[in-house]
Amino acid sequence: MQTQPSVHPSGAAHITGPARALTTRATRTLPIDRWLLRTFLRAAGNPPVRCVLPNGEAVYTGDGAPVGTVRFNDRRALHRFLRQPELAFGEGYTDGAIEIDGDLVEVVAAAYGKPMHPLVDRLFFSARRPRANTLAGSRSNIHTHYDLGNDFYRLWLDDRMLYTCAYFPTPEATLEDAQIAKMHHVCRKVALRPGERVVEAGCGWGALAIHMARHYGVTVRAFNISHEQIAYGREQAAREGVDDRVEFIEDDYRNITGTYDCFMSVGMLEHVGPDNYRELGAVIDRSLLPHGRGLIHTIGRTRPARLNAWIEKHIFPGGYPPTLREMMDIFEPYRFSVLDAENLRLHYELTAAHWLRRFEQHRSEVARMFDERFVRAWRLYLAGTTVAFRTSLLQLFQVAFARDRFNGVPWTRAHVYASPASA
Amino acid sequence: MQTQPSVHPSGAAHITGPARALTTRATRTLPIDRWLLRTFLRAAGNPPVRCVLPNGEAVYTGDGAPVGTVRFNDRRALHRFLRQPELAFGEGYTDGAIEIDGDLVEVVAAAYGKPMHPLVDRLFFSARRPRANTLAGSRSNIHTHYDLGNDFYRLWLDDRMLYTCAYFPTPEATLEDAQIAKMHHVCRKVALRPGERVVEAGCGWGALAIHMARHYGVTVRAFNISHEQIAYGREQAAREGVDDRVEFIEDDYRNITGTYDCFMSVGMLEHVGPDNYRELGAVIDRSLLPHGRGLIHTIGRTRPARLNAWIEKHIFPGGYPPTLREMMDIFEPYRFSVLDAENLRLHYELTAAHWLRRFEQHRSEVARMFDERFVRAWRLYLAGTTVAFRTSLLQLFQVAFARDRFNGVPWTRAHVYASPASA
Repeated sequence: MQTQPSVHPSGAAHITGPARALTTRATRTLPIDRWLLRTFLRAAGNPPVRCVLPNGEAVYTGDGAPVGTVRFNDRRALHRFLRQPELAFGEGYTDGAIEIDGDLVEVVAAAYGKPMHPLVDRLFFSARRPRANTLAGSRSNIHTHYDLGNDFYRLWLDDRMLYTCAYFPTPEATLEDAQIAKMHHVCRKVALRPGERVVEAGCGWGALAIHMARHYGVTVRAFNISHEQIAYGREQAAREGVDDRVEFIEDDYRNITGTYDCFMSVGMLEHVGPDNYRELGAVIDRSLLPHGRGLIHTIGRTRPARLNAWIEKHIFPGGYPPTLREMMDIFEPYRFSVLDAENLRLHYELTAAHWLRRFEQHRSEVARMFDERFVRAWRLYLAGTTVAFRTSLLQLFQVAFARDRFNGVPWTRAHVYASPASA
Repeated sequence: MQTQPSVHPSGAAHITGPARALTTRATRTLPIDRWLLRTFLRAAGNPPVRCVLPNGEAVYTGDGAPVGTVRFNDRRALHRFLRQPELAFGEGYTDGAIEIDGDLVEVVAAAYGKPMHPLVDRLFFSARRPRANTLAGSRSNIHTHYDLGNDFYRLWLDDRMLYTCAYFPTPEATLEDAQIAKMHHVCRKVALRPGERVVEAGCGWGALAIHMARHYGVTVRAFNISHEQIAYGREQAAREGVDDRVEFIEDDYRNITGTYDCFMSVGMLEHVGPDNYRELGAVIDRSLLPHGRGLIHTIGRTRPARLNAWIEKHIFPGGYPPTLREMMDIFEPYRFSVLDAENLRLHYELTAAHWLRRFEQHRSEVARMFDERFVRAWRLYLAGTTVAFRTSLLQLFQVAFARDRFNGVPWTRAHVYASPASA
């Protein structure tokens, strides 16, 4: 709201800029280039994607018709890609040195659709820790992504500005309805009761905090270190008349004080980093009353792997999606009893597809706010997210838990499905 | 069926026998005994349980009225208890050297109801591996418990002979209905379709295998190493007219062959042992088709701990209830995607309470089949099980999973709750 469309927030500085590829190009192609690319494609499982070398020569190792074409317009971009595929593909696509003909999502999906050679797999997906999420580091990491301007996110998120996986009762549901359903889904899982006190860690633009106060009669203290999001949340809470029951606090989850009936965190754990899970557990442990329950909603993995290198560098600095095993560092030291874990992977594929479609509809406005490089980078990020959930590179876990000796937990999960989530 | 009530199967040999305490007793009590017991009770959090020394002197460190009384009739039993509380309590109660006045469940619950001193806690609950579950070891371990005679189990299990946690749609449901609901619950979670092939690992008396064939139109290969259970299962399948679709195989889960649409295991993992989880995962990995799903239902823990020493020695040799983290050794190496984990801890408290009530109703028949020591041991085991789930020492996890790239998994879990489970 406060951000002017013409201002480039600092968080976008490393993506925006002149398109290098448009100025200088090395289009010469040597036989070694062709050989290296073919070898790479074979190790990657011969995906049904046609590649075109800088001199215009096509290379294809797949069976049947290709899904689309990847053009390496620049020999340097090709060689960088062969060395560091994730990072160089993202950067090359951003600056135009790499182009894609065909549907971006389908081409990226085709590239990830085949089982890779174990060595390739190990090289690109071996576990590596993300950059540190210290108190200062987290503030910088979060600023980079979430302070790009509320006007930007408003262009392609739902009208309540939820930037986390939605819950689609059926695949045909609208994104708006699915985000409301998601909020009811998490509230029902922890069985919120009127008058209870909830602490929310990483509250985004405040939609869930406001929803809990409005629909479940609870009071909420919502923590977030994104300045723009907190300001928006406060404004919204006042507009919806719940500012007496929702308190937004611009501070780190590690500084949460007070005791609560429920700990809620939707889409923050991705930014916490595995080194800090035990400390997060300690925060929850000191915050929860004896009958306390909680829920953590996070992007996850089937096995440990670093985030895509380009995403970690340019989109989500410090991001790390955990496995369920890694998440147990939050619960096990404090004997929290895990009540329920649900994997909503395919709901995130659909959520990201909605976002991508809306983003494309507003691409000219995004280009005016930032520039063409930014449009290309974010298009690739949203398409890649869609693909990552479709191909199971990423999972979406909702984990509900409680104090181990609390016997007042819901008897079954039937109440979660008792009636359609109402707006 | 085949076992005669008068026969003592070998599995009960270590529990049955003359009641030692009835023959010799050391009732002398020294001041050190009182001091040691008081110290122990304080370290155990001063539970509201009155203790009586062999000379009749009462010791009580709790607040308010005691829930019941533990009588140490024998000085040796007292000292063994102070050194090895779990083992000596079970053995002392079995042979009558330790007696309890008041409701057995409530007294045991009171003993576990207070937070223990961390040292006591560490001493008694530190992780220790159970005895080996090699192919031969497993056969012996399973024989000890499950081949006590079908006539014995028929006395206190439901009429379909399910010896695992039931699912009570409401706490008022009968045990019979709750076991049927449990079978529907697990079948719905993996979305069985007519014509599919299911492999069941550890099938008990065959009720679930028969249920899946009858109600979901699948064919089942059910593995179990308990001879008596397999024989019973075959007879039941023939009686219910599904013996053309249910094949019972008396063999270890490690010897499963063939490929299947679904892997199902209810109540076996407790007997597998954490050293074998990776191998179990490999069995599942080689058995499941690309669209394969599975479900593992097991007793578990909030954090690693050995089984109660007395239970492990006398009731469940080789038993080990895992944490969710430990269970990931099954899934993570093979990239299975965990879809759903549900904790039914309080349903097991209720199931065990049903079993205990029925057991007590048939105690004179059990005494005729075995002897009074056996009755006391199994009463304590069933009461202790009730308490362990009530106080969260044990959890009950149902974990549904699928091949990570299979996108045909149920869109939501609403179908699990779509209608009351039908008989």
